Amino acid sequence: MEIKGSFYPFKRYSDNPILTKEDVPYPCNTVFNAAAIKFNNKYLLILRIEDQRGRSHLTLARSNDGYNFKVDEEIWAQPSEDPEYEPYERFGLEDPRVTMIDGTYYITYTAFGPYGPRVAISSTDDFREFNRICLATEVENKDAVLFPEKINGHYVMINRPTGGGSGAGSIWITYSPDLVHWGRSRAIMTPEPGWGGSKLGISTPPVRTDCGWLALYHGVRATASGRLYRIGALLLDLENPEKIIGYTPYFIFGPEYDYERIGDVPNVVFPCGLIVEDDGMIKMYYGAADTCIALAEGPLDELMKICQCGPTTC
Amino acid sequence: MEIKGSFYPFKRYSDNPILTKEDVPYPCNTVFNAAAIKFNNKYLLILRIEDQRGRSHLTLARSNDGYNFKVDEEIWAQPSEDPEYEPYERFGLEDPRVTMIDGTYYITYTAFGPYGPRVAISSTDDFREFNRICLATEVENKDAVLFPEKINGHYVMINRPTGGGSGAGSIWITYSPDLVHWGRSRAIMTPEPGWGGSKLGISTPPVRTDCGWLALYHGVRATASGRLYRIGALLLDLENPEKIIGYTPYFIFGPEYDYERIGDVPNVVFPCGLIVEDDGMIKMYYGAADTCIALAEGPLDELMKICQCGPTTC
Repeated sequence: MEIKGSFYPFKRYSDNPILTKEDVPYPCNTVFNAAAIKFNNKYLLILRIEDQRGRSHLTLARSNDGYNFKVDEEIWAQPSEDPEYEPYERFGLEDPRVTMIDGTYYITYTAFGPYGPRVAISSTDDFREFNRICLATEVENKDAVLFPEKINGHYVMINRPTGGGSGAGSIWITYSPDLVHWGRSRAIMTPEPGWGGSKLGISTPPVRTDCGWLALYHGVRATASGRLYRIGALLLDLENPEKIIGYTPYFIFGPEYDYERIGDVPNVVFPCGLIVEDDGMIKMYYGAADTCIALAEGPLDELMKICQCGPTTC
Repeated sequence: MEIKGSFYPFKRYSDNPILTKEDVPYPCNTVFNAAAIKFNNKYLLILRIEDQRGRSHLTLARSNDGYNFKVDEEIWAQPSEDPEYEPYERFGLEDPRVTMIDGTYYITYTAFGPYGPRVAISSTDDFREFNRICLATEVENKDAVLFPEKINGHYVMINRPTGGGSGAGSIWITYSPDLVHWGRSRAIMTPEPGWGGSKLGISTPPVRTDCGWLALYHGVRATASGRLYRIGALLLDLENPEKIIGYTPYFIFGPEYDYERIGDVPNVVFPCGLIVEDDGMIKMYYGAADTCIALAEGPLDELMKICQCGPTTC
C-alpha cells in the first residue's frame, strides 16, 4: 500500500486560519473545535470559545460561502444553572458536534464539571433555541457523535470512555431507544503503537456513503514534549456500525503549519465537523492548536478510496 | 454527636473467618467479596473466587444457619465466550451483588477485561441458570447495586464511574426502563478529606426501611503504605433515591483483626451483601483482606439511628 502522507487528500485553504479570537465580537482567549453544518443554505459553525477564565461556551458563526464567517454577537449556550445540569457543565461546554436526524439538529458536546467530562446532548430546530435533552454518559467520557439516522430502531452514538488498562482511549459505540438511556456499548477501535498509540477518538459525525458510514477520527501520540493530535478516516458498515470495514492505518492530516504547531496547545488539528458539497468535495473545519479555526478541502471519493486501502474493502 | 467508632453497631462472629480457600473444593488463591441472599429458606453466598492465575469467577455457597457454609463443587459463572461479552469478561467476574426484583434475582458484577472494568447484570430464578442480561456501563465503572423495586417506573442502579478531576471515586445513581439502557445519571456522594477521602463506592444493595433505603458504602483512604477500606452507612429517600437523607460521616466498621489486616490486600473489609433477619438483626458478609470471608452482626434499628445522626434526619 502506498502511503501518501498527511497532505493527501486534504488541501488547506490558502487564507487559513478562517477564524481567530480577533473575529469574536467580545473578549475571549481562543476559538477552536467547531461543529459544522449547512442550515437554510448557509454554512453554520458551532464554535467552542474559551473565555479568559479558561472556561468554554458555544457561539454560532455563519457564512454564505463556507470561507468567510461572521460570529454572532450573542453566546448561544453556556453552563446551565438548572439543578438537573448543575454542576456538570460548571466548567464549560466543549467540542460540539452536530447531526441532523429527521429534520432536527442534535448537538453532542462535552459537559465539563467537577466530576470530570461527560457527554451531553441538546437539540435545535432553528439554531436559536438550545434545548438540552440529557447528560448522556457518566464520567469520564467525551468525543461523542450521533449517527444521522436510527439503525435497527435505535439511535447510535460513538463516544470515548476514558477507561483504563491497555484499552485506555478506545473508541466505543452505544445505542439508545430514546436518546436518554444508553446501552449495549462496545469498543470498536483501540490504540496501537504508532501515530495514535496513546488514545483515539471519533472526530466528525458519520456521513452515509454507498460504501459505509464515513467519519474522521483522531489519534494521539504522547511525545517527550506533549501530545500530538492527528487525523485518520474510517468506514463503518451501514447495517452494523460496530463493524469497521476500512480505515486509514496512517494519519492523513496532521499539524504542519505555524497556526497548527503554535498556540495554547501546540501540535493539534481537531476537526469536529465536515460538510460534503454537492460536487463531492468535503470542507473539513478543524481547531488548530486549541487557538483558532482552519479549513481544509478534499474529495470524498478519494477519502473513501484510502479508507478501503486498509485491512478490508467493502 | 457522639462517635462510637468502628465496633458499633456491628459485632464480629466469634468463629471468623467463615470461609477461606480451604473450604473451596478445588484449587484457588482466595475467596472473598460475596453477595448474600436468602433463597428457599437457605442462606446463599455468591462468592468471588480468585484462581491461581489471578482471575476471578463466581461460585455459590449454601448454609442452613448463615454461619456454616458449604461451597458448591461447580463454578457458577466464569468468563463468557459469547461474542457479545468477549473480551469484556476475559480477566474475570468480580464483586457480585444480588437483588431480588419481582421474584427474580439480579446479579450485578464487575466484568473485567482489557478495556478496564465495567458493570454487568445477569439474572436467575433458581440459582442454577446464570442468564446474562447486559454489560450495563462503559469503562471504568464498578461497585454497582440494583434497588429491589422500580422507582417512578424505572429500574435504579448505584454505581461508580471512576471519573477524574476532584470528583474521582464518587458514588453515582442511574436509571433504566429495561435494565439494558441507562441514563439520567448523577453523582450523589463525593469523597471529602478523611476516612473516605480517596474514593467511595456503594457496598450493599439498598434495603427498604420505613425511613428510607438503607445501604452500606465503603470509603477508601490512600495511606503511605496502600489503601485502607472501611465501611459507612447511608439512607436514601424512598421516593427520590438521589437524595441522601442521612449517613454516617465516620466509618462504622474497619479492619482491626488479623484476617482483615493481613492478606493479599491488607486492611480491607468489603461487604457485598447483607441479610436482615426477622428479628431485625443484620448479617453482614464481608471480604477480608481480599483473602477470606467474614461475618459481623448488628441491629438494623441501631444502624438506622446512627445514619440519622448525620447531617439530616428523616
